[in-house]
Amino acid sequence: MSRIEKDFLGEMEIEDEAYYGVQSKRAAQNFMVTGVSISSELIHALGVVKKAVTTANMNLGYLGKEKAKAIIQAAEEVREGKFDDEVILDSVQGGAGTSINMNINEIIANRALEILGYEKGDYDRVHPNTDVNMAQSTNDVIPTAIRIATLRKIDGLIEATNLLDKRLIQKEEEFDDVLKMGRTQLQDAVPIRLGQEFGAYRKTVERFIDRIKEVRNDLTEINLGATAVGTGLNADPKYIELAIKELRKSTGLKLESTDNLIDGTQNTDIFVEVSGRLKTFASSLSKIANDLRLLDSGPKAGLNEINLPAVQPGSSIMPGKVNPVIPEMVNQASFQVLGNDQTITLASEAGQLELNVMVPVIVFNLLQSINILTNVNRIFAEKCIKDITVNKERCEEFVDRSVGVVTALNPHIGYAKACEVAKKSLREDRPVKEIILEEDIMDEEKLSQILNPVEMTEPGIAGKQLLPKEA
Amino acid sequence: MSRIEKDFLGEMEIEDEAYYGVQSKRAAQNFMVTGVSISSELIHALGVVKKAVTTANMNLGYLGKEKAKAIIQAAEEVREGKFDDEVILDSVQGGAGTSINMNINEIIANRALEILGYEKGDYDRVHPNTDVNMAQSTNDVIPTAIRIATLRKIDGLIEATNLLDKRLIQKEEEFDDVLKMGRTQLQDAVPIRLGQEFGAYRKTVERFIDRIKEVRNDLTEINLGATAVGTGLNADPKYIELAIKELRKSTGLKLESTDNLIDGTQNTDIFVEVSGRLKTFASSLSKIANDLRLLDSGPKAGLNEINLPAVQPGSSIMPGKVNPVIPEMVNQASFQVLGNDQTITLASEAGQLELNVMVPVIVFNLLQSINILTNVNRIFAEKCIKDITVNKERCEEFVDRSVGVVTALNPHIGYAKACEVAKKSLREDRPVKEIILEEDIMDEEKLSQILNPVEMTEPGIAGKQLLPKEA
Amino acid sequence: MSRIEKDFLGEMEIEDEAYYGVQSKRAAQNFMVTGVSISSELIHALGVVKKAVTTANMNLGYLGKEKAKAIIQAAEEVREGKFDDEVILDSVQGGAGTSINMNINEIIANRALEILGYEKGDYDRVHPNTDVNMAQSTNDVIPTAIRIATLRKIDGLIEATNLLDKRLIQKEEEFDDVLKMGRTQLQDAVPIRLGQEFGAYRKTVERFIDRIKEVRNDLTEINLGATAVGTGLNADPKYIELAIKELRKSTGLKLESTDNLIDGTQNTDIFVEVSGRLKTFASSLSKIANDLRLLDSGPKAGLNEINLPAVQPGSSIMPGKVNPVIPEMVNQASFQVLGNDQTITLASEAGQLELNVMVPVIVFNLLQSINILTNVNRIFAEKCIKDITVNKERCEEFVDRSVGVVTALNPHIGYAKACEVAKKSLREDRPVKEIILEEDIMDEEKLSQILNPVEMTEPGIAGKQLLPKEA
Amino acid sequence: MSRIEKDFLGEMEIEDEAYYGVQSKRAAQNFMVTGVSISSELIHALGVVKKAVTTANMNLGYLGKEKAKAIIQAAEEVREGKFDDEVILDSVQGGAGTSINMNINEIIANRALEILGYEKGDYDRVHPNTDVNMAQSTNDVIPTAIRIATLRKIDGLIEATNLLDKRLIQKEEEFDDVLKMGRTQLQDAVPIRLGQEFGAYRKTVERFIDRIKEVRNDLTEINLGATAVGTGLNADPKYIELAIKELRKSTGLKLESTDNLIDGTQNTDIFVEVSGRLKTFASSLSKIANDLRLLDSGPKAGLNEINLPAVQPGSSIMPGKVNPVIPEMVNQASFQVLGNDQTITLASEAGQLELNVMVPVIVFNLLQSINILTNVNRIFAEKCIKDITVNKERCEEFVDRSVGVVTALNPHIGYAKACEVAKKSLREDRPVKEIILEEDIMDEEKLSQILNPVEMTEPGIAGKQLLPKEA
Repeated sequence: MSRIEKDFLGEMEIEDEAYYGVQSKRAAQNFMVTGVSISSELIHALGVVKKAVTTANMNLGYLGKEKAKAIIQAAEEVREGKFDDEVILDSVQGGAGTSINMNINEIIANRALEILGYEKGDYDRVHPNTDVNMAQSTNDVIPTAIRIATLRKIDGLIEATNLLDKRLIQKEEEFDDVLKMGRTQLQDAVPIRLGQEFGAYRKTVERFIDRIKEVRNDLTEINLGATAVGTGLNADPKYIELAIKELRKSTGLKLESTDNLIDGTQNTDIFVEVSGRLKTFASSLSKIANDLRLLDSGPKAGLNEINLPAVQPGSSIMPGKVNPVIPEMVNQASFQVLGNDQTITLASEAGQLELNVMVPVIVFNLLQSINILTNVNRIFAEKCIKDITVNKERCEEFVDRSVGVVTALNPHIGYAKACEVAKKSLREDRPVKEIILEEDIMDEEKLSQILNPVEMTEPGIAGKQLLPKEA
Repeated sequence: MSRIEKDFLGEMEIEDEAYYGVQSKRAAQNFMVTGVSISSELIHALGVVKKAVTTANMNLGYLGKEKAKAIIQAAEEVREGKFDDEVILDSVQGGAGTSINMNINEIIANRALEILGYEKGDYDRVHPNTDVNMAQSTNDVIPTAIRIATLRKIDGLIEATNLLDKRLIQKEEEFDDVLKMGRTQLQDAVPIRLGQEFGAYRKTVERFIDRIKEVRNDLTEINLGATAVGTGLNADPKYIELAIKELRKSTGLKLESTDNLIDGTQNTDIFVEVSGRLKTFASSLSKIANDLRLLDSGPKAGLNEINLPAVQPGSSIMPGKVNPVIPEMVNQASFQVLGNDQTITLASEAGQLELNVMVPVIVFNLLQSINILTNVNRIFAEKCIKDITVNKERCEEFVDRSVGVVTALNPHIGYAKACEVAKKSLREDRPVKEIILEEDIMDEEKLSQILNPVEMTEPGIAGKQLLPKEA
Repeated sequence: MSRIEKDFLGEMEIEDEAYYGVQSKRAAQNFMVTGVSISSELIHALGVVKKAVTTANMNLGYLGKEKAKAIIQAAEEVREGKFDDEVILDSVQGGAGTSINMNINEIIANRALEILGYEKGDYDRVHPNTDVNMAQSTNDVIPTAIRIATLRKIDGLIEATNLLDKRLIQKEEEFDDVLKMGRTQLQDAVPIRLGQEFGAYRKTVERFIDRIKEVRNDLTEINLGATAVGTGLNADPKYIELAIKELRKSTGLKLESTDNLIDGTQNTDIFVEVSGRLKTFASSLSKIANDLRLLDSGPKAGLNEINLPAVQPGSSIMPGKVNPVIPEMVNQASFQVLGNDQTITLASEAGQLELNVMVPVIVFNLLQSINILTNVNRIFAEKCIKDITVNKERCEEFVDRSVGVVTALNPHIGYAKACEVAKKSLREDRPVKEIILEEDIMDEEKLSQILNPVEMTEPGIAGKQLLPKEA
Repeated sequence: MSRIEKDFLGEMEIEDEAYYGVQSKRAAQNFMVTGVSISSELIHALGVVKKAVTTANMNLGYLGKEKAKAIIQAAEEVREGKFDDEVILDSVQGGAGTSINMNINEIIANRALEILGYEKGDYDRVHPNTDVNMAQSTNDVIPTAIRIATLRKIDGLIEATNLLDKRLIQKEEEFDDVLKMGRTQLQDAVPIRLGQEFGAYRKTVERFIDRIKEVRNDLTEINLGATAVGTGLNADPKYIELAIKELRKSTGLKLESTDNLIDGTQNTDIFVEVSGRLKTFASSLSKIANDLRLLDSGPKAGLNEINLPAVQPGSSIMPGKVNPVIPEMVNQASFQVLGNDQTITLASEAGQLELNVMVPVIVFNLLQSINILTNVNRIFAEKCIKDITVNKERCEEFVDRSVGVVTALNPHIGYAKACEVAKKSLREDRPVKEIILEEDIMDEEKLSQILNPVEMTEPGIAGKQLLPKEA
């Protein structure tokens, strides 16, 4: 069975059980682009918004109580996820979200009609535009819902990132006494401690937490009440005030009306900015993953300084092979976030005049990026970082074999002399110490004071007391 | 009920009805990144590959007939899509596709066991690695399957692009006699015909068809038999020959063994190249969409030269508004393809030594981009281009009002004099013709011969016969 | 005439007048990549750093007074730009800036030798590494100098952006009473005021100022004293303290030692973050430029709502044509900044272990981006925004002709009825008002109260008092 | 001393010695964006074009012989580079190259005046637009000149790439017998030969050569004669024919008129396509550089399989350190090319209607990318690849220590059994062979036939004759 609905383009048959209506169906047929459906967070956030605005309209007397209450109940059900399947649209679609907004408006109108005991489609009684969308435009409702959805997702991301931070701190402490060779440009440099390396990773993670929290605050400025172009046409100032109050209450978020509704309606730089910070973090994350894979390389023909936990067999052909699949996943996820940032930036640049019509592809990529990083941080923390172990002897062996410690001699014998020693040590494959003594550059006692690799891992001039005062 | 499976990391409980096994399940738990599952084209292509290699192994006597036939039947079922739901992995995952390969190996092994009347999990009889993956590695099987999947998707894309081309040609012909103002830098330039504009769009589409066909050929070189690092370890040369012959037969594709298996195993530049051509096309497509939206702008406060077909109501608040949602979708889809290209390029650059482990994110984005453009071209052709109409009088009105036609006077009165006329025409808001006559620069008869806007739309000097010979 | 210099790779002839030495010359020959030389800001910042560290080394007695003073004088001359031409390196180069650092070290050593009355190249007396680079590594000196250079450039950028902001505010005020059609999706929407549009532009500019100031603070954390890998080997803690104090004094910048020297040495996310914010701004700037070009389109066959100042003739062939070249330049500059951001992000991701060796390409692109935006903001402000004029009648004409005002009737007659009116108005090309009256939907008095376009540009329901109370 | 010139915006003082004129000077003042001046190749190509078109105009009698000859001589001098310094514009500028075209027009007009014995600026005699730009528009002249400049640069690039190819082939042959461990996912895999690795690098280089040659052909289609919007207004068809013939003669390039002048004027996808192929190559090049740096890592705490030639001292602080600065430069240059591609793509997407006004930023980035890759390929070939040496014993040692050879046992003992052996070998740090024998899995003779690492580097099943026939 089906009902007939019409809009100003004509009539259309809608399956009877459907809560969506004619505009949703047209849009579903128009946009079959990616096959990925609208994010449920956005759907739920729209439920929240519809509830708040209808409450405001009711309390100001613009909407009758009975009708309003049915709409509010329907909106609440949208928020709860009961109608996720009725949102039948592709994530990439024309319009700045009009189809999403209308899909929700139609669901709510039909569900409200049902609640009130009427037939679905009887829009003279509850109208998707006149009633459910009262005092609203896609152009204020969608940006508001996106911000709410994004804020919530960001909170999840921060939580996952805190977990990653915690795991890195644990390793920083655990490996604080593991002496190893530092490498610059993949060449042996001077000694460092493994804990110090994890400490550097940790810092990038913490900077991201700071940066994302900072930009999170800017997301709380919403343009609800801006309506079509930001002028607030058809939106009673009291309604704006009331609706946002409601929204604050129901979300627990510190939402506020932006001080420039026109700006809030047409500009999407906030999303580029959020994505930009995700991009910065993703590039750091990828660097960490690269480092871990490198330090774990081997087991026999690589560095083999650390061991990543084995989480699955690594090869369909090579028996016993275990691969660093978690960091590899981190790399790939980071590249995805970088690509998504590109899409978001282009889409934001393409806004024109009073509206950025590219909002659907922005929100699709932004929520995906946040989602990815949330999952990645958690997996990286729990399935990789947490269980990393170190091959301490291997690390020490590298320090012993290396000539980089010669650097500590610079203040004592000068760079040019130190170069000669280094070259000879490498050429003859003999320890630096041996050559220094053989060439009588310094006596053994003095040398031992200077060539202490552990001391080299903190600021200071080794054997400083042995230096002649120049001036 | 469940069974116990084990791999070299230990035991795991698997639901009895599942065809996937322990390695699939581990991987599913390790990688929950995007929530997007593996593309079905890739799954089906793996079915095709497994069938071909098993046939080769059987015919060479490496695999018993009975077992082999069961594996072949199972592989065929994978190809038919019967086990799509048993591929339980996220699109973004560590490993260069090992988890996908093992997921397929396990499905096939268990289905073959079932066919042979044994219990699932009884891998001593049919082993996912030893038997189903015989003479193979992820590192040759996955690149081969990706090429097959990509070739098939590209064929669909070419078809959709041909349709777009056809619709543009129709408009090129239909609008061949519609005179209008050409615009450069959004400023009035000189007359052009609307059909010519569509002809220019068409050309970019046709260049893309050429470019994608060209690169399509390179995709037919496969590395089957390369095994782990491209050396072909464990792959009998006769097997390689036979397996590819089988593959050619069952796909109808002109697949050939690459002449450098090492290269075919580690390098992924072919995917960057394919994506790069999609990117070029996407940027052209976006330009066309921008143009159409601009020419359609209005209806009262815009250019309004053409009318895009109305496919859905445009606004939740503004009654009667119709928006150019199809081109808007085209823009967004193009931005997505540009972002995906970024991800693919980064992932390809990150390959190391004998393998590019970032293949999963490459194939995820590449197949998505092809998919998007296939859908977009079809929708753009059928829901937009096909039904565009023109407002002929509006176009003519702009030609009449404009001063750009003064350009045709350059050869007759010189650029400097023409400038003066143009400035006066604009300042006094009077036609160019009127000013020429008033200032006695040229007589009316001569002027009429020169100022013919239709003639201006083809190469030639208007009033050439009136020019004095200089030399 | 020439002198012979040598390093541990061997001897090389250096032109006598050159202040650079053997390592500079090798590097100049190794890297001839872009043909673009090192930014002078970076050179000068290195002068500043060398002066500060030498002062610290002198005061702590590590360097003799006479030698130190000569080095300090030479460093000061580097800062003053006297040796810019002696920095003979390409902007893109291997090493994390070692060649730049050594180029400066050699210039300073040779200049100091000259000051002290010795021959250039007599490095036994003043050594580029042992003396000029004392207690330093490229890996702390270069990041420190980059931060100083970047901070200074950012200050110039903020100044230029403030100017742009000021010009936008002036236009926001000047055009506050210019009523015009708002457009969403390039389709006629509802009335807005031109000043409001400039107000929205202004907001994006101001947000950028906030964002760049915020990240500016993070740039003041420097890793001077970190030396080779961040452990501070060869750097006396007192030296670190003294050197930074000196640096603060001589630059006037609030520089501080980072609390994690390892992190400060290997991580470059701060530059990605700065560039990311430039990218966000560039995408906004490009949107503004697009809008202005669109509103200025015409003069006869476009929107022609505003007039951009003519800054040069627009065409080599079309007489009298004036093009929006300044905004066009803004678009292109924005694209450059977006491309540069890409390069910076990739380069930062490619850091490995204790060092990011890709620093040269990062600083090249970062300083170029800041430079571009500084120039662009100033030019955009002074050669474009400042002198924009409006065609007020044209703007009003669009409002009069449009049907968008029908939106204000929604609360009074419902969305569905309003749609019918809108469609009829468009179809018959007659004013909305005429149709309402003809169809007796509302009386003229009431209608006039509602259809006031000026009121439509601020929040509120037109004719609110005429609404029936529902509840 | 100075002269007064004027255009339709008014008068301007021009220094007497300057060959450029009023429009150049205005543009120079309007666009001070990057500080990078116009590429000399583009300037010279414009000289070539101006000479050809003037010859055509003269031969058709549109331009007097004396004047034409002076213009031709001046154009020839532009081609020779005599006036490079008179092109005073920034690379990033508004307009689609109008300012560049006018700068050249003015130089040629003034130089022609000088040749003819007149004063500079006496444009009544030789006019930059009427005469030098006769029958031309920026919109056909600039795209034509860009193609000529690009073709020439590409020829240089192909030459440099051939050199790189040659050096890789030499190493492929030289290292053909160097057995080493193959690594996948940075983990020990199975044996490979070093020559095979260089062979894989070579293949990506050769594919690029094919791809760039292929797209090179498309660049030979030029739109000369298209004038303002592609319609050919003011361009006699005979002129088009003659001018292109001239151009072919003077450049030696197989230039042809495009079959769609409208398309040739507005679309820039050819440049995106060229850049896309550079991007693909750059990502491959960066992968090769990464591999070489990794294989060269050490000397004591890294893989140290190969030695890159030392081209300069590596560190300002660490004595004797030699860094892989050439590959590092290759990475950075690749990132620059990737960023440039981004800019080019965005700029091309931003074309509107009859023209892409973003052409200056496109050509700036495109020529820079070609230039960079030309330099990079030559340096990479000559300063790095050519002199790479191998540490053969080190390579063999890794093969001996590794367990990856166990893979060859799969066909004989099955994957599961092989896993057990591999695990035991790793756990107990004993050779695979020892364990096989100890556990009596296979006898020594058989084992020796199978475990031959050299044979493992070509397709085949080791010990194939020992396998039981299954069927």
